[in-house]
Amino acid sequence: MQLLFLGTGAGVPAKQRNVSSIALRRLNNEGAIWLFDCGEATQHQILHTTIKPRRIEKIFITHLHGDHIYGLPGLLGSRSFQGGTDPLTVYGPKGIKAFIQSALQLSATYVKYDLSIIEIEDGTVIEESDCFIHIGKLDHGIDSFGYRVVEKDRTGELQVHKLKELGVKPGPIYKQLKDKQTVQWEGMTLNGADFLGEDKKGLIVTILGDTRLCRRSFELAEGADLLVHEATFEQKSEEMAYEYFHSTTAQAATVAKESGVKELWLTHISSRYTSVDSEDLVNEARAIFENSYIAHDFSETAVLSKEENS
Amino acid sequence: MQLLFLGTGAGVPAKQRNVSSIALRRLNNEGAIWLFDCGEATQHQILHTTIKPRRIEKIFITHLHGDHIYGLPGLLGSRSFQGGTDPLTVYGPKGIKAFIQSALQLSATYVKYDLSIIEIEDGTVIEESDCFIHIGKLDHGIDSFGYRVVEKDRTGELQVHKLKELGVKPGPIYKQLKDKQTVQWEGMTLNGADFLGEDKKGLIVTILGDTRLCRRSFELAEGADLLVHEATFEQKSEEMAYEYFHSTTAQAATVAKESGVKELWLTHISSRYTSVDSEDLVNEARAIFENSYIAHDFSETAVLSKEENS
Ligand SMILES: [Zn+2]
Ligand SMILES: [Zn+2]
Repeated sequence: MQLLFLGTGAGVPAKQRNVSSIALRRLNNEGAIWLFDCGEATQHQILHTTIKPRRIEKIFITHLHGDHIYGLPGLLGSRSFQGGTDPLTVYGPKGIKAFIQSALQLSATYVKYDLSIIEIEDGTVIEESDCFIHIGKLDHGIDSFGYRVVEKDRTGELQVHKLKELGVKPGPIYKQLKDKQTVQWEGMTLNGADFLGEDKKGLIVTILGDTRLCRRSFELAEGADLLVHEATFEQKSEEMAYEYFHSTTAQAATVAKESGVKELWLTHISSRYTSVDSEDLVNEARAIFENSYIAHDFSETAVLSKEENS
Repeated sequence: MQLLFLGTGAGVPAKQRNVSSIALRRLNNEGAIWLFDCGEATQHQILHTTIKPRRIEKIFITHLHGDHIYGLPGLLGSRSFQGGTDPLTVYGPKGIKAFIQSALQLSATYVKYDLSIIEIEDGTVIEESDCFIHIGKLDHGIDSFGYRVVEKDRTGELQVHKLKELGVKPGPIYKQLKDKQTVQWEGMTLNGADFLGEDKKGLIVTILGDTRLCRRSFELAEGADLLVHEATFEQKSEEMAYEYFHSTTAQAATVAKESGVKELWLTHISSRYTSVDSEDLVNEARAIFENSYIAHDFSETAVLSKEENS
């Protein structure tokens, strides 16, 4: 999987950082794009990337604050205008359906693809062909959710050399063995499992919405290969973070450390911090959890499994 | 008055042209800003100008298509977040109130200033201290309106030299005469009107929403010092313009010519045209009406009275 940060600021757009959106490229899934949040001008940010709006298959909204949803009506409309015909599903808290439908209807926007809008709640689990998405409610005043994407393990490679040693030639039987079936072949019983390499561990990526430090974050982040956590404020502004239902750099790093994640990305940075401050912010996190990074608009990172990474 | 084009594209944002918005700086009115339309990322465009969102006093929406309104919720919210406390009024077609209220409520956005939303109709006239705004309905499939801003004439300058010749010294009497009062002074009757220069003609600026060529446009544009007219298509695409309820360069120029306007600005240019094509588009208009210009994002122009201009 690959992550591309489209907007990494908090509350209002600034020249340096646009409001929230993250694109997740699902490499296992023919490069389908999933978006997490869609602040105003997300479609404008996308113009500066290789992402095609019609390749966006799912949009997950963490919460309904304007800086996370005001780009939705425009993106949904443009996707249709630009020829997108594949279905699209938007997931989000209760109210997301009314928001989208009201905006599209009042602006006489009729999209030419199947648009599904699914309202989620704490504990919702979505199963896809190749992954599960676990959803948990955080602590942000209004309902705010975290998404934990857990790829299913993939069957190992067929060990062709073992089959060749037995004289088994390529053909439909290879497919059967790869599917872990038991096959009779020239008087022998071949068990698919015996001819497969180790299963490939699925990746885990956790993307949390705006939140105070809360227990649910640890559960959603547990053992993730990559965690995206908001860090609206610096460490010393912990009181302010609490008051505004946000987190500090240090709190994000604590979640990463205690949950045993592989890599932490900080985002949703207040516009009070300049790009010079970024270095200080990430260092605050690194003092607690070394493998921390601060996202900038258009930052990209590949999510690697623990094995690939080491 | 000064016009600043914030977005000059049609339908969807492109790298070259953002979706519709125009700022009108009311020089007579302490530099208050009025916006006409507010497509997505208008607040982002404003970040690259000297405009302060809190100085925006009125927003006039021509019609409810997404490329003209999707920037409203974000701008209204940011204006409050950034400390704007002065009242703001939004004018627009029926539905604008539901659009704004639904977006703000569902996103839990509470603005800290008085926000009035006024739904207009064909023939609505708004009177301000220093101007009238006449509103007429155009031809765009959905309700689309044009705004004709007519400044009231301003009293001429007090001709101080005439008073000094009579021996009248500066004092409250100057104010009375300036207000066109009749004043008794040392046995003489002084009539304010006799000591004032010529009235200054108010300016007329007409900004039309998306429309086919229609009669109402001529009425709204009549004798304007400046006309802003959409030109989504080139001259030869007149059939397509008709089909999609839009205008061509030549149609815009015809309205300007027949209405005796002083200056025409073309905007709402389809993204099919590159910046190279701009020259061709404006030349099509100039063949019909010489004083034509094509707007680009961040184009600025001062609106001058016919006298100042010649
Ligand atoms: Zn936020
Ligand atoms: Zn338009």
